[in-house]
Amino acid sequence: MSEKKKKKPQKLKARLPRGFVDRSPADIRATDEMVSKIKAVYERYGFDPVETPIFEYTDCLGKFLPDQDRPNEGVFSVQDDDEQWMSLRYDLTAPLARHVAENINEIQLPYRTYRAGWVFRNEKPGPGRFRQFMQFDADTVGAPGVQADAEMCMMMADTMEALGIARGDYVIRVNNRKVLDGLMEAIGLGEEENGSTRLTVLRALDKLDKFGVEGVKLLLGDGRKDESGDFTPGAKLGVGQIEFICEYIDVALRGLSETVAFLDRIGEQDTEWHVSPIIEAFSEIDQLATLIEACGYGADRIKIDPSVVRGLEYYTGPVYEAELLFDVTNEKGETVQFGSVGGGGRYDGLVKRFTGQDVPATGFSIGVSRLMTALKNLGKLGQDEVIQPVLVTVMDGDTEALGRYQKMVQTLREAGIRAEMYQGNWKKFGNQLKYADRRGCPLAIIQGSDEREAGKVQIKDLIEGKRLSGEITDNVTWRESRPAQIEVAEDRIVAEVIRMLADQAEDRAKSG
Amino acid sequence: MSEKKKKKPQKLKARLPRGFVDRSPADIRATDEMVSKIKAVYERYGFDPVETPIFEYTDCLGKFLPDQDRPNEGVFSVQDDDEQWMSLRYDLTAPLARHVAENINEIQLPYRTYRAGWVFRNEKPGPGRFRQFMQFDADTVGAPGVQADAEMCMMMADTMEALGIARGDYVIRVNNRKVLDGLMEAIGLGEEENGSTRLTVLRALDKLDKFGVEGVKLLLGDGRKDESGDFTPGAKLGVGQIEFICEYIDVALRGLSETVAFLDRIGEQDTEWHVSPIIEAFSEIDQLATLIEACGYGADRIKIDPSVVRGLEYYTGPVYEAELLFDVTNEKGETVQFGSVGGGGRYDGLVKRFTGQDVPATGFSIGVSRLMTALKNLGKLGQDEVIQPVLVTVMDGDTEALGRYQKMVQTLREAGIRAEMYQGNWKKFGNQLKYADRRGCPLAIIQGSDEREAGKVQIKDLIEGKRLSGEITDNVTWRESRPAQIEVAEDRIVAEVIRMLADQAEDRAKSG
Repeated sequence: MSEKKKKKPQKLKARLPRGFVDRSPADIRATDEMVSKIKAVYERYGFDPVETPIFEYTDCLGKFLPDQDRPNEGVFSVQDDDEQWMSLRYDLTAPLARHVAENINEIQLPYRTYRAGWVFRNEKPGPGRFRQFMQFDADTVGAPGVQADAEMCMMMADTMEALGIARGDYVIRVNNRKVLDGLMEAIGLGEEENGSTRLTVLRALDKLDKFGVEGVKLLLGDGRKDESGDFTPGAKLGVGQIEFICEYIDVALRGLSETVAFLDRIGEQDTEWHVSPIIEAFSEIDQLATLIEACGYGADRIKIDPSVVRGLEYYTGPVYEAELLFDVTNEKGETVQFGSVGGGGRYDGLVKRFTGQDVPATGFSIGVSRLMTALKNLGKLGQDEVIQPVLVTVMDGDTEALGRYQKMVQTLREAGIRAEMYQGNWKKFGNQLKYADRRGCPLAIIQGSDEREAGKVQIKDLIEGKRLSGEITDNVTWRESRPAQIEVAEDRIVAEVIRMLADQAEDRAKSG
Repeated sequence: MSEKKKKKPQKLKARLPRGFVDRSPADIRATDEMVSKIKAVYERYGFDPVETPIFEYTDCLGKFLPDQDRPNEGVFSVQDDDEQWMSLRYDLTAPLARHVAENINEIQLPYRTYRAGWVFRNEKPGPGRFRQFMQFDADTVGAPGVQADAEMCMMMADTMEALGIARGDYVIRVNNRKVLDGLMEAIGLGEEENGSTRLTVLRALDKLDKFGVEGVKLLLGDGRKDESGDFTPGAKLGVGQIEFICEYIDVALRGLSETVAFLDRIGEQDTEWHVSPIIEAFSEIDQLATLIEACGYGADRIKIDPSVVRGLEYYTGPVYEAELLFDVTNEKGETVQFGSVGGGGRYDGLVKRFTGQDVPATGFSIGVSRLMTALKNLGKLGQDEVIQPVLVTVMDGDTEALGRYQKMVQTLREAGIRAEMYQGNWKKFGNQLKYADRRGCPLAIIQGSDEREAGKVQIKDLIEGKRLSGEITDNVTWRESRPAQIEVAEDRIVAEVIRMLADQAEDRAKSG
């Protein structure tokens, strides 16, 4: 220890682990704005907030890892003093199931809850892919009927509109896991021993958006090699099975009635495919469709779409997905639809793992930063104007003078005005104005010894100053310029600051 | 694997690791309310939000663990793929120092920021002591002058008042670390080799509130055994040193002027104690006192108190603490002052570890759940009334009927009214009313086949119903009772619900 001490201390490199990022003021404010709008919808729907901690016992998180079946990979885990393994939650659904099971005797079912929170994946980070990100979930537990799923779909649609996304720019696509199970049964994969093949098939279908029909075909067959050379093993289905699935997908993409007609046609023919389980599953879809239609939600808001999969293993009934339909440019410069911003479905088995008894549940999750990116694209966030602080500059640094400047600041703050005194090295006045400029301060208040003796201050309009110096040329330039600096009596500071900020606000409103 | 499968699946126990808890709706709403009030104050002071992720590289967190010097104990750590150790942050100050150092060229100094976030301690949990808890920090970085510390103290005072804590029920106590360093120097512990003894002495002094003068004496001497038998080794000071410190504490508790007079007296006498470093340190305190007085903050809000320590090793100048003065009953049934809800100080060395150059900083941290407990004690939270949803009951469960009930719910929601359809088993109507009762629903809407044919619904006033049945007896019982159930036309539902909710709100307002 004492030897180490004598060594010259090495400078530490300030850096974050890969896949973790700091959040800027603009990001935090935009997220808060978005989250509070979503909350308002959920509250109106009768949902209440409930939150769980970020750690759970690893066994409680279970094996329901998205897109993989490895219990300890993909999550961050530590061993507790008592040797038990704990993990950081990778989603908000597994912890909710634990919460419900743990409190099943106190909780009043049906139980509508929501929560926003950080989740963690110990995976390779990439562009837009982080190891810590925020999800916003809503779940109804103890509601067995399809009406609970219908409500979730309507709530997702209402949420999109509450965020300012126009009807036509989004759609909630709905399918039912039983349809997909029926499809598996139809091609002879219904038995329990085919569980892992079924999962591979579902994951392949879920990649339709990403890889197209040809890619899905490869994943249903021997496997697919991606651009980087990585190989994903396929489901190794027979040619006939693959052909039937692809025909089904093709028809499913054309819509509900085409799909039903196709299945009826197959049912009447003498083929090797037993489509009756699929047809039966469509009755639950019909019921959901009837409920949402009764509430006036047309296909422009909620659309039955037999091609929707959702990859998670634990879904047992309706599955639904919020998709944004407007075009954006992707990393490769291609124009693509924005795509999914969240989704979910019915998971009747998750709580049962703990309680042994059936506890039906349905819910969905919104990817907060992905939805925020979409809203930024649409110009729907950051409407809440943030005015930077009024800067009281420092012309004299003795304690008595600093007290006077600070008093001005406190008086402005008491009047509800964002304000601050310059806290850096006051001696270079130029630095103070440079600071005000970079920080975007709207006004600067200046009091040198002359002004002080006269009981006055100078208030500099920094926005108008910029405009006059030609740095700002907007469509309010037609108006006559205001004075960029005025002298006022000390006791008029608050009133004049309020007036000048109002003038600036009016200018901003005029220039849109 | 296949062998395991055949075993009867064992039921999993739903439980949380020790020291972690779920948060109830009331807790979440109270925290949100409190945090948003605090934010409003900080924003007015010109602070902007900035947040860091919950993971940092362990070396970036440094050795500044509160109350202990062990680099890997006390924190949760995992090793990344590349063998580097990452830890969950144990406070919000060390990550901020990393953030500032990493972005030093982009950040406009002086830099005022705030953030609320979860922090983690891998320690033995106890009553009110969790392994995950929330802190709310504010910091000014790049501001060397004591005016920045003065501003922090005023901001803490304003925060307490914004939360509804009356003047006199709180005080911000201020000291300066240099005073304590001076005290160490005075008793001959100034040299670098006495670093660990100094730290033990400071920690002992910080325990004054908890253990009293006698406890501190033990910690300054050989050590102290607590009630459970655990032994804390002491600083092993000499009898003379201990006596001098205790005399100093005794005087310090009496206030600033007594302390200065005491030190002057000692300085004039021919003792072995060199008090001049303490006296010099008081000049910075004087400066701070002058600044806050100039802004009209008297000792009823911010009080210079030479007995304040704050245990953290990294403070280099002013230290301050928000203390609540009203009485509460502790676990032992004793009446005690509520005590500290947050504090901080100047830490000029934290960023320097990374940058090698001086980056002065000052800031403080509020313990969110502790402050929330205090506000609940004062009845200052939960003022924002949460109205439970109006329940639309289900008398008939076919899809067509469900569609009609759901449509009523959607219409209420569109009008901004919290509403829900009963989602459990509809067949036992008694269960629906029991649900409404337990959930605290204000109104229930009922439509059987008779009402439906007549195009009407029944609206049941559940609050009035309870009142009439004698379950509620409040001080509005003098008024004439309203009908507990009315029949209205379907197209009048929204209007009548709004009227009935308004009546209930009026009753609540009357009964306080």
